[in-house]
Amino acid sequence: MTSQLGSLAPLFDPATVAIIGASDNMLKFGGRPIRFMREGNYPGKVFPVNPRGGMIQGLQAYKNIRDVPEVVDMCVVTVPAPLVVEAVKDCVAAGVRSVVIFSSGFSEVGEQGEQWQGELAEIARTSNTRLVGPNCMGVLNAASHAVGTFASSFERGWPKTGSISIISQSGAVGGHIMVLARERGIGIRNWITTGNEVDVDVADCIAYCAEDPETKVIAAYMEGTKKPEQLKAAFAAARANGKAIVMMKVGASEVGAHAANSHTASLAGADAIYDAMFRQYGICRVYSMDEMLDVAAAAATGQFPGRNRLGIVTISGGIGVLTSDIAALHDLEVPELPAKAQQALKELMPLAAVRNPVDTTAQMLNDMPLFEECLRTMLTQGDCDATLVFLSTIGFSERMMGLIRGVLERVRADFPDDLMILSMVSLPADREYLESLKYLVIEDPNRAIRAISALVGFGGSFVRGESGALPELPRQAIAPPRRTLSELDAADILSKAGLPMAPGRLAHSADDAARAAMEVGYPVVMKIVSPDIQHKSDIGGVKLNLRSSDEVRSSYQAIMAAVGQHARDAAIDGILVAPMIAGGVETILGVHRDPVFGPVVLFGLGGIFVEVLKDVTFRIAPFGLDEAHRMIDEVRGRAMLDGVRGQPAADVDALADALSRLSVYAAANSEVIESIDINPFLVKAKGEGAIAVDALILTQTE
Amino acid sequence: MTSQLGSLAPLFDPATVAIIGASDNMLKFGGRPIRFMREGNYPGKVFPVNPRGGMIQGLQAYKNIRDVPEVVDMCVVTVPAPLVVEAVKDCVAAGVRSVVIFSSGFSEVGEQGEQWQGELAEIARTSNTRLVGPNCMGVLNAASHAVGTFASSFERGWPKTGSISIISQSGAVGGHIMVLARERGIGIRNWITTGNEVDVDVADCIAYCAEDPETKVIAAYMEGTKKPEQLKAAFAAARANGKAIVMMKVGASEVGAHAANSHTASLAGADAIYDAMFRQYGICRVYSMDEMLDVAAAAATGQFPGRNRLGIVTISGGIGVLTSDIAALHDLEVPELPAKAQQALKELMPLAAVRNPVDTTAQMLNDMPLFEECLRTMLTQGDCDATLVFLSTIGFSERMMGLIRGVLERVRADFPDDLMILSMVSLPADREYLESLKYLVIEDPNRAIRAISALVGFGGSFVRGESGALPELPRQAIAPPRRTLSELDAADILSKAGLPMAPGRLAHSADDAARAAMEVGYPVVMKIVSPDIQHKSDIGGVKLNLRSSDEVRSSYQAIMAAVGQHARDAAIDGILVAPMIAGGVETILGVHRDPVFGPVVLFGLGGIFVEVLKDVTFRIAPFGLDEAHRMIDEVRGRAMLDGVRGQPAADVDALADALSRLSVYAAANSEVIESIDINPFLVKAKGEGAIAVDALILTQTE
Repeated sequence: MTSQLGSLAPLFDPATVAIIGASDNMLKFGGRPIRFMREGNYPGKVFPVNPRGGMIQGLQAYKNIRDVPEVVDMCVVTVPAPLVVEAVKDCVAAGVRSVVIFSSGFSEVGEQGEQWQGELAEIARTSNTRLVGPNCMGVLNAASHAVGTFASSFERGWPKTGSISIISQSGAVGGHIMVLARERGIGIRNWITTGNEVDVDVADCIAYCAEDPETKVIAAYMEGTKKPEQLKAAFAAARANGKAIVMMKVGASEVGAHAANSHTASLAGADAIYDAMFRQYGICRVYSMDEMLDVAAAAATGQFPGRNRLGIVTISGGIGVLTSDIAALHDLEVPELPAKAQQALKELMPLAAVRNPVDTTAQMLNDMPLFEECLRTMLTQGDCDATLVFLSTIGFSERMMGLIRGVLERVRADFPDDLMILSMVSLPADREYLESLKYLVIEDPNRAIRAISALVGFGGSFVRGESGALPELPRQAIAPPRRTLSELDAADILSKAGLPMAPGRLAHSADDAARAAMEVGYPVVMKIVSPDIQHKSDIGGVKLNLRSSDEVRSSYQAIMAAVGQHARDAAIDGILVAPMIAGGVETILGVHRDPVFGPVVLFGLGGIFVEVLKDVTFRIAPFGLDEAHRMIDEVRGRAMLDGVRGQPAADVDALADALSRLSVYAAANSEVIESIDINPFLVKAKGEGAIAVDALILTQTE
Repeated sequence: MTSQLGSLAPLFDPATVAIIGASDNMLKFGGRPIRFMREGNYPGKVFPVNPRGGMIQGLQAYKNIRDVPEVVDMCVVTVPAPLVVEAVKDCVAAGVRSVVIFSSGFSEVGEQGEQWQGELAEIARTSNTRLVGPNCMGVLNAASHAVGTFASSFERGWPKTGSISIISQSGAVGGHIMVLARERGIGIRNWITTGNEVDVDVADCIAYCAEDPETKVIAAYMEGTKKPEQLKAAFAAARANGKAIVMMKVGASEVGAHAANSHTASLAGADAIYDAMFRQYGICRVYSMDEMLDVAAAAATGQFPGRNRLGIVTISGGIGVLTSDIAALHDLEVPELPAKAQQALKELMPLAAVRNPVDTTAQMLNDMPLFEECLRTMLTQGDCDATLVFLSTIGFSERMMGLIRGVLERVRADFPDDLMILSMVSLPADREYLESLKYLVIEDPNRAIRAISALVGFGGSFVRGESGALPELPRQAIAPPRRTLSELDAADILSKAGLPMAPGRLAHSADDAARAAMEVGYPVVMKIVSPDIQHKSDIGGVKLNLRSSDEVRSSYQAIMAAVGQHARDAAIDGILVAPMIAGGVETILGVHRDPVFGPVVLFGLGGIFVEVLKDVTFRIAPFGLDEAHRMIDEVRGRAMLDGVRGQPAADVDALADALSRLSVYAAANSEVIESIDINPFLVKAKGEGAIAVDALILTQTE
């Protein structure tokens, strides 16, 4: 992808800002940004633009953007919709590098608006000027106080400058999140809302922030994307640069009728695809604004543990139990401490519980040196990756806070890199101070644990990086021809693509069938092959478990007779003779073309797992072996592959290999493939591989 | 149960309070309650007790509790553990009605403490004095400011007086919750922490609050109970009186080895039993302190909708989508509004989305009369049971708040009983005012929706009340004899208890078997019956699908021969001849004796649902048909009973009937039954009933 750093830098970090529709009136959209920038000591230059000229808020106003004597990095357009296109054209003519369009009244309201928006899109396409909006709440650089927004919330103060960039498709949601962040004292770098996304969209902004050295964490809200490839590239770039993405994605749209006749597609809700993509790129998906800010603030500390072992120190035994319960829900381990650590703690505090959670009891707060020693023991001997300290409401006691501050200062000095989370009620000033010491302070212990689990998730994702090498397609792999493909065609095509398919031969006579049976090996199954016959068993078109050439010959005749009787006009390709395969764990592999993200691979266990429980998981193609293994581990019925009811463990490696190969094949032929359904795919005992018994490929109709 | 209102009233609402160990020093436990009561204008009388006598904090002190000239409702004991027993004896001698013991150093620390605690228990048992603690944080009446706690948090102010009573086994957790409640301005009635529970426990306190006319909502934290019957009775009383219980239960203890050899027991974690009980009694289980307070505060408004239809009015389309997603997760419906309502809204706001969620867009806030009209239209024509209004951060705009306050006042005046929830950032004073208008104000929309769903849950539970009539046991029902019971014994016993069991006959010769087959009907299954043979199939002790008397005769001989060969010394009861039953949905019904709650009924679908997915649900016995239906609806594989793969819908009524009957039988024989395992229990097509194919009963060993 092309770098967004170049073309979007003037938007995110402008040195010159113009406002078209500038006003002295603070109640007007054209009045607020100027006032905010003046009050925020924005160090760049501000150019009011207004046909009346003169002075606006003490600054020289220009009658037209073209009159501004310097190159404008960002121009804010606040005029009503009917005047916007003209204003933007002026901007382009003036060489403005980016334009922010607040105005609503475009594609969201009807035909005239859509036409205008089309014109804006055309301008963006044919110029070097980047457009934000229309119908957005604008943009803010929280470090320089370059303001391209009319959000009135700055009247209550600026957000703290920090390393979190907030990107929101929705203006209202973005504005709401910024206010919450400011109230909580969370440090912001960039804030942008993209509205109708005529040009700059969430993907572009993430790509920019992924390269922006000042951004460490990206908190994004999105409803959908029109640029899936750019979005994926932006996600990959962020991960490669060690930037955590916290994502709120709302609005599961329905998978269209295009995929209705594919079993796979019927299970692939669009939301499940987004969910799969987020997992694939190590993105932390959140479902509330509180959760978003908790996780973003935690990630901004840059502490990403490599493992998931949580140590808990609590002054309340009850909270110890509660947090252990919650940790388990978030896949955090609360391991028993090493014997030596337990012994050391027991010597310090004979009445404490020391297994982990470590319950010091509230009495401990009366002996701060002991409490400090307890923390130090946890950090040096506890073998944990994160330490949660529950201090209840002591933040309301000035005396206690004075004491605990000293403890925490000294401990941090000696353990500068340990991830420590304080769960306590505290006054804002105290919290800010403790956060400056790189403690995470999250009042509610459940929320603290959720944030820790997110950090562990990021840590794992950063270490993994890209999902590993992709298997190469065999040289003989071919694209599926665009026509109706029989199961024999499908088996042949997928076999050439490197997937283990049950061998099968098309027979055209009883003798031929007997020869075929000899080749593939007894016992065999026989099946009519015809593009015109859907329910083969119902009309007697299938014979199972045939064990001799006599049985094969007579079955051939029987099938032909049945077909002749029940499907007289069907075109017959022949009769498929294939080995009768039994045993192994029944699974389903599929490919489905998502209207947004293209080929998506599905995995599920067969039978009721898919049919009743919808127990399936997805990945966007292509992906490597590691990702395939993670995918397999996600289904609820995973234990089936470990062997149940005395069955041996299944060959999960062979299964993962097939999923990865299928994903590579699907990605390579995304222009042709509508769907692939491999069902059943039997996974044999460990070391014995896996084999597809039946497969169907649908190609896209022109 | 006996009423707790009598004996606990002096504790929860004392007119006279004494403090043993009274002190002038505010840092001492014996100093704080007196100071708090004076500062809180406690209207009752306070009697300091201290061996030195004299004046304490301006009050006449007494040298011994027995010297106090009036009857003491509540006496707080703050002396160290070794002096507690003596002090409590003095209290009893003085006729004190309740005693609160802060002191730690009892059963939680070792032998000496356990002995003292035993003595306290004995005192409680043999006197009319009720004991709270030891090792607790005490008690508070937030209306009168009767203080029996040393919690120092009152230094920052009293909690608001209200209708929520907080009951916590853990002092630290209880104290933490009270502080959070106070900071959020949530109104409290009673607050009590029960600590080691030598006498008064969580069950007693819930029972008291269930009858206390001032308490509307009970927010409880518990780790376990020693009085399960009282706990259930308290839950039932609270429900009968329309009091909502919000419960945080932590610490899943392991089901003991006592049940290890029962399939049912192996799935019944103790936490699952608590969970079942909470569902059974309509209790809202919460997992965080924030969630607890959100739900409790919502319930305190006393608005419990009868249905689950949620209307959403939002100034942000994005939040509309988000809240719809979250509503679905919480089983709230966001129905399309009636056509007439949509039309009316569209006329008001041509640019708004009116389907539901109703997205007015933020522009609407510029036209308050329109916004008011929109709300009124929702309330009169929307056909919803609750209305969520998202107003983002407008609470920070004084001007906007002034306008919206007026709207909300007028709307509330005309719709006094409608459940309306405001999701908005607001200043504490504004929030308090809006709450006084019976609006629920919950900043985060996700948390608002969770609270609404809890109100719907309470509403449903209050309407349901007790789980309906229990089926009567048939007259011929018998208790299982305390011995090893064969499957034939079990079938006979359960059949007499009213459960549909497959008929079977024990045969003692080949001829006898043939006669039995005729009686039960072909095809039949034959099975060796012996207490000494576990794996009958493995040794050839089972024959399936026999279709003629010849087959039955030869099978008899074959089984006997096989048993003679492989299990020569086994005692043989005979050979069971039973009809071969096929078809229907395979389910499992079970009974397991929980060490705390006694007989618990399990339900699950057969096969992988139980074995791999642990997809089972529980209820405490006994329960009626309605509860059985709710139980059935809880399993993930519920759809299996609706008919999949072309199967007809199953006879769920017959299944529910069997579950309810089993529960009544298990409860009636709880002294004898260790476990019952009915597996498989086949549920036939609707109208065709259900039948148990195999069953096992284990009785308790003495």
